[in-house]
Amino acid sequence: MAKAIAVIAGVGAGTGASIARKFAQKYSVAVLARSSTSYQSLVHEISSSGGNAIGINTDVTSIASVKNAFAEISNAFPGAPVAAAIYNVGGGFVRKPFLELSQEDFTAGYESNAKGAFHFSQAALPLLLKSENLEHPPTLIFTGATASLRGSALCSSFATGKFALRALSQSLAREFGPQGIHVCHAIIDGVIDIERTKGFQFDVPDAKLSPNSIADTYWFLHTQPRTTFTQELDLRPYSEKW
Amino acid sequence: MAKAIAVIAGVGAGTGASIARKFAQKYSVAVLARSSTSYQSLVHEISSSGGNAIGINTDVTSIASVKNAFAEISNAFPGAPVAAAIYNVGGGFVRKPFLELSQEDFTAGYESNAKGAFHFSQAALPLLLKSENLEHPPTLIFTGATASLRGSALCSSFATGKFALRALSQSLAREFGPQGIHVCHAIIDGVIDIERTKGFQFDVPDAKLSPNSIADTYWFLHTQPRTTFTQELDLRPYSEKW
Amino acid sequence: MAKAIAVIAGVGAGTGASIARKFAQKYSVAVLARSSTSYQSLVHEISSSGGNAIGINTDVTSIASVKNAFAEISNAFPGAPVAAAIYNVGGGFVRKPFLELSQEDFTAGYESNAKGAFHFSQAALPLLLKSENLEHPPTLIFTGATASLRGSALCSSFATGKFALRALSQSLAREFGPQGIHVCHAIIDGVIDIERTKGFQFDVPDAKLSPNSIADTYWFLHTQPRTTFTQELDLRPYSEKW
Amino acid sequence: MAKAIAVIAGVGAGTGASIARKFAQKYSVAVLARSSTSYQSLVHEISSSGGNAIGINTDVTSIASVKNAFAEISNAFPGAPVAAAIYNVGGGFVRKPFLELSQEDFTAGYESNAKGAFHFSQAALPLLLKSENLEHPPTLIFTGATASLRGSALCSSFATGKFALRALSQSLAREFGPQGIHVCHAIIDGVIDIERTKGFQFDVPDAKLSPNSIADTYWFLHTQPRTTFTQELDLRPYSEKW
Repeated sequence: MAKAIAVIAGVGAGTGASIARKFAQKYSVAVLARSSTSYQSLVHEISSSGGNAIGINTDVTSIASVKNAFAEISNAFPGAPVAAAIYNVGGGFVRKPFLELSQEDFTAGYESNAKGAFHFSQAALPLLLKSENLEHPPTLIFTGATASLRGSALCSSFATGKFALRALSQSLAREFGPQGIHVCHAIIDGVIDIERTKGFQFDVPDAKLSPNSIADTYWFLHTQPRTTFTQELDLRPYSEKW
Repeated sequence: MAKAIAVIAGVGAGTGASIARKFAQKYSVAVLARSSTSYQSLVHEISSSGGNAIGINTDVTSIASVKNAFAEISNAFPGAPVAAAIYNVGGGFVRKPFLELSQEDFTAGYESNAKGAFHFSQAALPLLLKSENLEHPPTLIFTGATASLRGSALCSSFATGKFALRALSQSLAREFGPQGIHVCHAIIDGVIDIERTKGFQFDVPDAKLSPNSIADTYWFLHTQPRTTFTQELDLRPYSEKW
Repeated sequence: MAKAIAVIAGVGAGTGASIARKFAQKYSVAVLARSSTSYQSLVHEISSSGGNAIGINTDVTSIASVKNAFAEISNAFPGAPVAAAIYNVGGGFVRKPFLELSQEDFTAGYESNAKGAFHFSQAALPLLLKSENLEHPPTLIFTGATASLRGSALCSSFATGKFALRALSQSLAREFGPQGIHVCHAIIDGVIDIERTKGFQFDVPDAKLSPNSIADTYWFLHTQPRTTFTQELDLRPYSEKW
Repeated sequence: MAKAIAVIAGVGAGTGASIARKFAQKYSVAVLARSSTSYQSLVHEISSSGGNAIGINTDVTSIASVKNAFAEISNAFPGAPVAAAIYNVGGGFVRKPFLELSQEDFTAGYESNAKGAFHFSQAALPLLLKSENLEHPPTLIFTGATASLRGSALCSSFATGKFALRALSQSLAREFGPQGIHVCHAIIDGVIDIERTKGFQFDVPDAKLSPNSIADTYWFLHTQPRTTFTQELDLRPYSEKW
């Protein structure tokens, strides 16, 4: 039987790459990002250490681009079932006084978080539904944020997008859970330890989220049997105020 | 001093009309709806019973249309302060298996609920901020629904829109509350007693929300002083399961 | 017909007294407090301005004391229906490192907030249920706090009590709402403007909750018809961070 | 170095036993239950398959009984650090019309869920705090339920207890998280697959939560590093309505 596939949308220097590495230990992985610079070295790294990986330039806000990405995945791994689909797209984070937001600023949060997740889910779910003989239930995971639960001042673009994404994840869990699909929503609350946040200062050590540990949690979620699904969890450093 | 204005977006046979009637007891009202058939008789009714009312054809999903509506309001009531702005737009309610949703179906919930509210808020807030010598704090109210808190199966379009609207209301409350604007979110949970729901059968009397009582609550919210603002409340019939 | 009664538990210098004054404009009021010093001048004030008021020494954590209070109320106002019962008891606020809490410290939050509310509700609900011909639906209101939604560090006693009170209010709303009783939970988030908080400094004016405005909101909740009940709302100053 | 210890309160035929078996793969386990019949065969099973286990008769609602239990644990495993403490006590589930609840009925939910958890946490936290050189952060897990988030009709006793437990878990997470203790709250939503629920009928297979899978999740939570703690998650069968 063909090795199963994990599809990860939103892969850059941080969480997405860690998720891809983790899932590549067991599955072929397809990583989607707007530009190949985001995934090239990752795909090379996985491939050269014995894994299977492809990267596909994808604009998640375009339904055609997402459809095309999934067609490429099917071509690259013919006959392989899709075991996991992970929507880890950020973007749309605009912090500005509300009256200074352009329409484009405001809708950016929705476009990348919710509308992109809609495209991704519509492409991934039919494949997850027809996957058979997998070791773990087919899994669809969405990455949320503090803003999934709280609309802060100056952050309406991001918060509207993340609230909407959470609504989508619940709606899909209630429709597709009974069909055996595990739909999860992870609320990432804190600064992630990546290149871009290297300079952030904290009073204590280990105050940033580890991308590899986020990936371990996503993998664990994937391994839960259908008797015992988690729909939502939070992840934050021990030192984070919340 | 010029009589203050209340602007109500989303006026048809139900809640919006009741809100307009209630606020017209004290203010000039401007009612916004996609088509004049939605407000003509209401405007006539208010005008002929001693109130001031104008109706303006408005597509809230178009920023130009919303800007134009507010320009008309300023022309109609020159120099009058805006005391209240109420965003009561429904729409985008699509109930369908997720995989059958078109992109237009899916985004409809966001377009009418959240993007429309963005346009409306950007037009209304500058006017609310410059209102002076009002009896009650300038007020911006958004109408939510059960789907503001729960993403049900088959309802991802509506739920993503209503979740996003709730995020927006929180973000605006946190930014503009300290500037004296009262931003509220009302969660309407149940069937509203309007023409369209006349035939709905219930086991008990009074099982539908009264539009006039919703309007009374909105008016009460408007009268709260800035020491004691409600940001969110729910409204449901005594007999509703929740 | 006998004038209806409002019973208010938890009356001191602040919110409880304002609620009593408000409801005394229409009803006879019975105010319950641990010590008569908490209500004596209030009862005198109401009585001497044309209202009806009695005060009863009550320990809400004692079922016998609460039963006795309601027996006294029936004796004082024979045949009068009970229109509203308001549980506004604070107490149990202990702020301490968890490992320094005595068992008494920890349970204090539950005792005064939840167990007291249990006693009060068991005594009040049979009277509310048999009230007839009232202008407004019989109403049971509980006063919550920020700690109803958030368990902060060092505040486990108060938070466990307020979370439990919220659970009780929901459970009662779901059981007695369909029987026509309006059960509400008000989340008071901020500093209340009372004698004890006179010295609290804020950067802006009006930064404390007005007890009279809280009372106005409670009265408004009481007047909602059964078609359109609010189960939960929050109340906070415009300047409060949340 | 002495093998570390896991303490599990609330061990019977179901989840508690599975948790003990899971943690016994790595740690010595101490299981607490009201009666030895609840743990005797479990202790025997673990011991005879190469693990270390002791059982201690404990009434969690009694502070003396809980202190005694932890003294026995220290005696049984001298010098061993405590790696995990799990509070899995149910009890207090009373389903009855509110007006038929005795005071004992009502407080039962709080006594076993929240007050018991207070005793357990006060005994466990000092030991968790002084544990050193552990592979995983010292962990304190509480078992919640659907009733942690929702006060249903007729269930005020259980819901008040579970709401209060959730408040406690948040308060402890905020106080002890920054000290490196991982405090979690797991919301178990559904019927657990144990002896007592064998006869429950469902339309689909696998409709009950697997105790072993709950245990796997608790173990996974324990292994999360302090950069990436989960404070709350839910667990439910794929087929559960929620």
